[in-house]
Amino acid sequence: MNGPSLPVPPGLVEAFRTYEQALMSDDVEVLDRLFAPASTTLRGDADGLLVGHDQIAAFRSGRGGAPARRLVQTHVQVTDPDHALVVAVTELARGGRGQQTQLWARTDDDFCGGWKVTAAHVSVPAPALDTRIWRVVGDPLVPGAPAGPLVGESVAVKDLFAVAGQKVGAGNPTWEAAAPVERSDATVVDTLVEAGAALRGIARTDEFAYSLAGTNAHFGAPPNPRAPRRVPGGSSSGSASAVSLGHATIGLGTDTGGSIRVPAAYQGLTGIRTTHGALPMNGVLALSPTFDTVGWLTRSVALLREVGDVLLPPDPVPGGTDLVVVPELLALAEPDVRSAVETWVADQGLIVREGWPLGELTTWLRAFQTWQAWEAWAVRGGWLADRLDTLGADVRTRFRHAASVEKAEADAAYDVVCSARTRLRDLIGDRVLVLPSSSSVAPLLGQGLQAVRDATMRLTCVAGLAGAPAVSLPLATRGGLPCGVSLVAAPGRDRALLDLAVSLG
Amino acid sequence: MNGPSLPVPPGLVEAFRTYEQALMSDDVEVLDRLFAPASTTLRGDADGLLVGHDQIAAFRSGRGGAPARRLVQTHVQVTDPDHALVVAVTELARGGRGQQTQLWARTDDDFCGGWKVTAAHVSVPAPALDTRIWRVVGDPLVPGAPAGPLVGESVAVKDLFAVAGQKVGAGNPTWEAAAPVERSDATVVDTLVEAGAALRGIARTDEFAYSLAGTNAHFGAPPNPRAPRRVPGGSSSGSASAVSLGHATIGLGTDTGGSIRVPAAYQGLTGIRTTHGALPMNGVLALSPTFDTVGWLTRSVALLREVGDVLLPPDPVPGGTDLVVVPELLALAEPDVRSAVETWVADQGLIVREGWPLGELTTWLRAFQTWQAWEAWAVRGGWLADRLDTLGADVRTRFRHAASVEKAEADAAYDVVCSARTRLRDLIGDRVLVLPSSSSVAPLLGQGLQAVRDATMRLTCVAGLAGAPAVSLPLATRGGLPCGVSLVAAPGRDRALLDLAVSLG
Repeated sequence: MNGPSLPVPPGLVEAFRTYEQALMSDDVEVLDRLFAPASTTLRGDADGLLVGHDQIAAFRSGRGGAPARRLVQTHVQVTDPDHALVVAVTELARGGRGQQTQLWARTDDDFCGGWKVTAAHVSVPAPALDTRIWRVVGDPLVPGAPAGPLVGESVAVKDLFAVAGQKVGAGNPTWEAAAPVERSDATVVDTLVEAGAALRGIARTDEFAYSLAGTNAHFGAPPNPRAPRRVPGGSSSGSASAVSLGHATIGLGTDTGGSIRVPAAYQGLTGIRTTHGALPMNGVLALSPTFDTVGWLTRSVALLREVGDVLLPPDPVPGGTDLVVVPELLALAEPDVRSAVETWVADQGLIVREGWPLGELTTWLRAFQTWQAWEAWAVRGGWLADRLDTLGADVRTRFRHAASVEKAEADAAYDVVCSARTRLRDLIGDRVLVLPSSSSVAPLLGQGLQAVRDATMRLTCVAGLAGAPAVSLPLATRGGLPCGVSLVAAPGRDRALLDLAVSLG
Repeated sequence: MNGPSLPVPPGLVEAFRTYEQALMSDDVEVLDRLFAPASTTLRGDADGLLVGHDQIAAFRSGRGGAPARRLVQTHVQVTDPDHALVVAVTELARGGRGQQTQLWARTDDDFCGGWKVTAAHVSVPAPALDTRIWRVVGDPLVPGAPAGPLVGESVAVKDLFAVAGQKVGAGNPTWEAAAPVERSDATVVDTLVEAGAALRGIARTDEFAYSLAGTNAHFGAPPNPRAPRRVPGGSSSGSASAVSLGHATIGLGTDTGGSIRVPAAYQGLTGIRTTHGALPMNGVLALSPTFDTVGWLTRSVALLREVGDVLLPPDPVPGGTDLVVVPELLALAEPDVRSAVETWVADQGLIVREGWPLGELTTWLRAFQTWQAWEAWAVRGGWLADRLDTLGADVRTRFRHAASVEKAEADAAYDVVCSARTRLRDLIGDRVLVLPSSSSVAPLLGQGLQAVRDATMRLTCVAGLAGAPAVSLPLATRGGLPCGVSLVAAPGRDRALLDLAVSLG
C-alpha cells in the first residue's frame, strides 16, 4: 500500500485483508461484522445504493458471493488515526478491472482491531450486454429510414414482436431455440423503422407475456433504476428498463392485463396501451387475443404522442376531456399510491367524483382472468403441454391453471366479459377515467407476487375489459418511489388521450 | 443532506454544490481547483483509476463535460472537522442512476473554504452495449452446436468476417450502410460454431483492418483494461478488448502486419497469427491477400490451442522446438519491452543467440508496406476512390498513399518480399524464433502513432514476410504494463507452435 503523509494506522491493513478474504470465500458473517452496524452505513454498486447495515446484510445473504478477483493497486488516505479511505483496483478472474472505495473507521469492537467499513462503493466491468434486459442489441440492430418523424429515436422491441432476421424468443429459452428466424417485421415494427426509428435490440419479456412482475426466471429481473432492488414490472420489462436506462428512447411492448401500465408505474415512465384492435397484431405473439394490445413506453409524454402520431389511425370517435375519478377504484390502491393519485387529482382542478356500481368488479376480474387463461392455453397449450417444465414457477403455475379451465367455465366467463365491457364503456362514456396504474409501488425483489398481481389487475382490468386505451403518467409517492396514474378513454380515443396526456404532463 | 453524529463542517456543502455546478458547466478551472493538488489525489471511473492531480486535470481537459444529471440522494460521513465523505446518488438526464463517492479535506487554500476532493469514485449506468467494442452483441448472437470441443466458449467476431444474417461493416459506417446481409458464415466462423462455440457478437475493427492502433475514428478506441487510457492495439481491437473484459472467451481476428499480435501484446492476451494460407479466407474481407491470415486471441494459452485443434489442419511440416533469439531484433524494442523479453528468455534456459544478417530489414519492411498498400488499393480502391473522405485521418492517409503506389514500384517490392521470404524461412529453419510482439507497450491515447507503427512493423513483418505462424504470449514490463513475446516457426508448424506455447505458458 502507498499513502500520503499520515502513517497507516495499526490493524487497518489486516482488517482490509480479512475483508478481501471473506469476500472471496463469501463468509457473510465476517463481512457483516466488518461493516459498521449503523443505519448510516452505505454500500453502492451498479444496482444502486444500499443504506444501513440491515439492507447491506440482506443483500449479502442473497448474493452468493462476489466474483473472484485479485488486487492490483491499493491506495490509502488516512484522515486521522481512526479513519482511512482505501481505494483498490481489482482484476477480475472473468476479465477486466474493477474499483472499490471504502471508508474505514476504528470502533471499540474487538474484532479486527475495531475497524469497520462505514461506506463502500464498488464498480466492476459491465458485461457485453445486460442479459436481464436484452437478448440481442446493436449499434443499431436495424437502422431506421433516413428521414421521418422518428429519426434519432431508438426502439427496444419486446421479444414477442417479429424482427426480420431474428427469432421471437418470448422469454423462454426452449421456445427460442426452436423458433424460426423471422422473414419480415411485425407491421408496427416496420412502421416505426419506416418513420426513422432505429431498432436498438430485442428486449426481454416475462415468459409468453403472462406476468406483470418482470421477474423472468431464466434471465433475471431487469433493473428498475428509479426503485433499485424492486421488480421492474412486466411483462414489457426489458423494454421498460431499456428506456429507464437510456438504452433506447421507445420501449415497444404489449398490454393484455397491464403489461405496459404496470412497468410504466413501477419505473416512473409514461406508457400507452392502445385501443384493442386499433393496431395490427401480425407478427406479434399472442397471449389472449381478446385483450392483447400493442403499447409503448417513453421517458417523455411528448415522445409518447409522437410515436402515436406514427402508429395510430385517426381517432374514429370524438369525445370530451372531462376527467372522472371513482372513489371505489382509488380505494383499491395502497395508501401511498392512493395519496399520490389524490394529490395529482387535486392539482388538476375540475375532476368529477362519481360513485360507480362496481359491486361486480371481483366477478369481472375473475372472468377476465379465466377467459385470458382459456385463450392463453388455446394459443400456447399445444406447444406447452409437454413443456410446462421449461417455464419458471410463477408462469408455470399460471399456465397449469390455464390448462385446467373447462370450456363451460370459459364460455361463462366470456359472457361476463362482454357484459362488463358494455357496462364499463357506458360508465366511461365520452369522459376520461382517472385511476391508479397499479395498486402499489414496485414490490421488493424476492417477495411473493400473486397478491400484488391480483390487486393491480383489479385496476388494470378495467381498460382491458373495456378494450379501451389507457395512458399511464408517472407520479411518485411521498417516499419517493415511482407509481402511476392512468387515464382511460373510450375505445378509439387514443390520440385524444395522448393529446390530453401532453396537456396534463 | 443527512449524516451521522458529527456536524457537517462549515463550507463543505457549499464546496460540494460549487463542484456540482462546475461539473455541469464543464468549468475545468474550478474543477481542477476543487481537486487536491497532490500526486496522491485519486479519481476512478469505469475507464480506470487516475492517480495524481496532473492525470486528473489532463483527463478533464480532454473530456468535454460530464453527462447532465441531478442529485437524488446525498449522504455525508464526517470523520473529523476537516474531513468528510460525501456519497451522492445522481439521476442522469439520459436515463438511469449513478453514484459518486468523494473524500473531502479542508486545506489552507482560500477557495471554497479550503475544501478539496482527495479521492473520487464515479459510476454511471453502462450503455446498452459498448459501441467502441461491439457493433452487435447477443445472448448469444448465434448459438453454438450443442456438442463439441468448444461448448461453453463465446466468440467476438471481428467485423471483417461474414456471419449469416449480418453485414460485414469493416469499421467504416459508409461501407456498412451499403453492405449486403451475408447469407452464410465465413468458413472459420462456421467451423467454430459447429464445434460448439457461440457467437457473442460482431466486434469493431480498425477501418478495413489497415491499422495497428485500434483507434477507430468513428466508434472510438475500445478500452484496454490492463493499460487504462492507452490504445487497445488493432486492427483486431474489438475482439481483443472483448476478450480482456470477459465479454467473450475467443477473439476472432485477422493478422496482416500484426493485427493479432499487437493487441495481444498491448492487452496482455495470448494470440496466434496462423500460417499464411493455412485457413480458408472465404467470407473474410481482404486487406492484402499476400499477407492476410486468420488469427485469434484468448486469455489462456490452453484455449488458444483448443481453438487451433478445431480450426487448423494437421501440421504438414515437422520440426524442432529449439528457441533462437536474435539480438538485432531484440534491440528494435523499447528498453522496457526488451527487458521483459530478455527476462523471459533467461527463464527458458536453453536458447540459442544468433546474429542474423538483417541489414536489409528496413528494405524488407518498406517492400512489405509497399506491396501491402498496392494490394489494399487493388482490393478496396474501386470502392474507396470516391469515398476517401469517409475514412478517419490515419487510415485515410494510408489509403491515399496506397492509391499513389506505381505498378513498377509494387512489382519491385514484390520481388523483395519473395526474396525476404526465402531468406527468413532459411534463417528460421526448423527452429522457433523468439522476438518482441511489439516494439513498445500500448501508447497513450492521443499520441501520434505512425512512428510506433513503423517500429512495431519492423518486428511483426518478419512473420508476415515469411508467411509464418506466430504466437504471442503475454509479458509485463517492470512498470506493470502488458507487452508480449512472439514465437515464430516455419509455415505449417502452427500446431507445434501452440503445443510449445502451452508447454512454455
